Order: sequence, then C-alpha cells, then structure tokens
Amino acid sequence: MDKPIIPSEIRTIYEGRIFTVQVETITLPKGGELKAEIVRHPGSVVIVPVTDSGEIVLVRQYRHPLGRWVWELPAGSLKRGEDPEQAAARECHEEVGKIPGRIDRLGAFFPTPGYCDEEMSIYRASRLRDPEVADVPAQPDADEDIETKAFSLEALRQMISTGEIIDLKTVAGLALAEGISRP
Amino acid sequence: MDKPIIPSEIRTIYEGRIFTVQVETITLPKGGELKAEIVRHPGSVVIVPVTDSGEIVLVRQYRHPLGRWVWELPAGSLKRGEDPEQAAARECHEEVGKIPGRIDRLGAFFPTPGYCDEEMSIYRASRLRDPEVADVPAQPDADEDIETKAFSLEALRQMISTGEIIDLKTVAGLALAEGISRP
Repeated sequence: MDKPIIPSEIRTIYEGRIFTVQVETITLPKGGELKAEIVRHPGSVVIVPVTDSGEIVLVRQYRHPLGRWVWELPAGSLKRGEDPEQAAARECHEEVGKIPGRIDRLGAFFPTPGYCDEEMSIYRASRLRDPEVADVPAQPDADEDIETKAFSLEALRQMISTGEIIDLKTVAGLALAEGISRP
Repeated sequence: MDKPIIPSEIRTIYEGRIFTVQVETITLPKGGELKAEIVRHPGSVVIVPVTDSGEIVLVRQYRHPLGRWVWELPAGSLKRGEDPEQAAARECHEEVGKIPGRIDRLGAFFPTPGYCDEEMSIYRASRLRDPEVADVPAQPDADEDIETKAFSLEALRQMISTGEIIDLKTVAGLALAEGISRP
C-alpha cells in the first residue's frame, strides 16, 4: 500500500516559468479513477536568518496573487540541479544582503501536498556578515523589489497573533528555528 | 505603494476541479513588465482536533503529487460561499468522524503566496463527540481513503524532527495551537 500509484495517462496543460501543470489519470487505492490535477514545482528553500543579537530578518515584497505586500522569511526557488544548502546561502545573500557563516537544516516540508509537489527545505542561517570584495556578487531577480528588517522574536510572535504575518512558511520556519509558545 | 497592481491582461490557461491557472500581465512597482503565473484556489480550512486527553488527531492519506502517504492535520477546500468555521466543523466530522463542541480560530495564512492565492484558515477543534442520529450525516469525498490516529504532543514533535511529518500546515497548525519548542 505504500508504493506510489503509476498514472495511466499524463497530460501536460501548461509549462511556465515558475511551475508546470499536469493532469494525471490514476486508479485510486480503493478503486475508482481520478484525474489528479498537479502543479509541478522545482522546490524551494526558506531561510531563517538570525542576527548576532538574536533577531530574525524578514523581507517584505509585493505578492501579486494576493495583491498585497507581505512580510516573509527570505525564500526562493531552486535552480536546476542546485544544492538546497547552497541555494539557502545564495538567497540569504541576494535577499538579505548578508553571507551566512553557518547554516543548519531544520527539515523539508510540502506546503500544499494535495495538488502541488513543491518541497520547501528550511534552514537557519547565522553568523551573518557583510559581503566582501572576494565574494561572488549577489544576482537578485530582476522582478524583485525587497525591503528587509530585523525583528525580535517577541515582535514576530505578536505579528503572527495579530495577523500581520500571513505567510505560512514564516510561521512554520520560526516555530522550527526558535519555537512558538502556546498562545 | 500599498495598493494592488491592476493587470493589463488576464489569460485563463486552465480551469480545473481543484484550481484555475491564470497568467496576468502586470507592470512592477519599480518598472518592467511581468507575466505573473497564478494558481487560483477557493481557500481551505485546517483543523487541529484536540481530544479530551490532550492528544491531536492526524489523518493519513495518499498524496498523488508526492507519490506518498502523508500524516497531516485534517483539512479541506472551501465549498463555494461556505463559511470557514462551518467548513472546519464539516471536515472534522468527515475526516475524523467526530463533531467538535468548540472551535477556536488560530489565524489564516497563505502557504505559497509567490504563485498561489490559496488562504488556509486554521482552527483548533475540541470537545469532540461521536455523531448522533440527529446530526446531518458526513459526506466524505468519494476519492478519499483516510486513516486517523491520535498522537501525543511529544510524539508529534518527535515526528516533525525525524522527518516523519512532511506537511507544512501540520507544523504551523501544531505550533499555533499547542506551541513548538526550540529544538
């Protein structure tokens, strides 16, 4: 029962820049046929950047699907063949402007396993330093317009409970890295 | 700067059972045109069902996009026009087989705001009771094949750190409902 179901048909509906959409025809474990709609995504990394004074750096950017500017942990899609840990260091440099001296893996999780295969690998990044001449320069995405700010844990827990933080990976990443107390 | 950007063109690529895919042409805040690929989703509810002895009920089901069986908090998409709190009670009945006497809202969060507008409303459900003759019978989805089990908080925290729990909303929901300590 623990083996994946092999689809009898795979139809590719859309191949985009961010994701691909497929409709797969499968026979369910308890019988019956299902057209499974799937968003295929290359996977992503999420970074919990911790400053030397114990604050966490968030980024704020416009998220067009919501029509809103959103405070989030820094994150980004994996490039083809890229190692997630290296991607985490790269995104920390690109979005936060700091190079992490230490990266700890906190786990990997699927945000929407019902219809999407995106896997988010989450890392705690610390011992942050400014880039130097010898470092490979950051190459931020052309469409990114990002504000960064460091927050205390207390402020972040408050922003979660007041609804100012509306991003799920930020809640999960903070919980994994620093803990969240029962309200 | 805090107003949504109005797209100059909206192209609908796919209209499915679970989601719709659109490509919207927008002009970015700092200039430049972007084709924004968007998965439109009706929104969903996530339930943290807490038993009288303080255990949490998870469900295990086959997630075809991953090709794996996954332990998760019970969840489901909103039906058209449905109130999220009523949807939470409905999903608790359908997936866990229990009717909650009490439902507390823990917040609403976006799992993948970069390309999808799904909003997950998260509820703690408690005072669980068996359905009675007078209750409207549950109508589980035809394609669902679900196992349920109650876990202690300690067991759940362990399953998160060992990688047995791979679902992001489960990490976030448990953190919001019961807290997660720093590892």
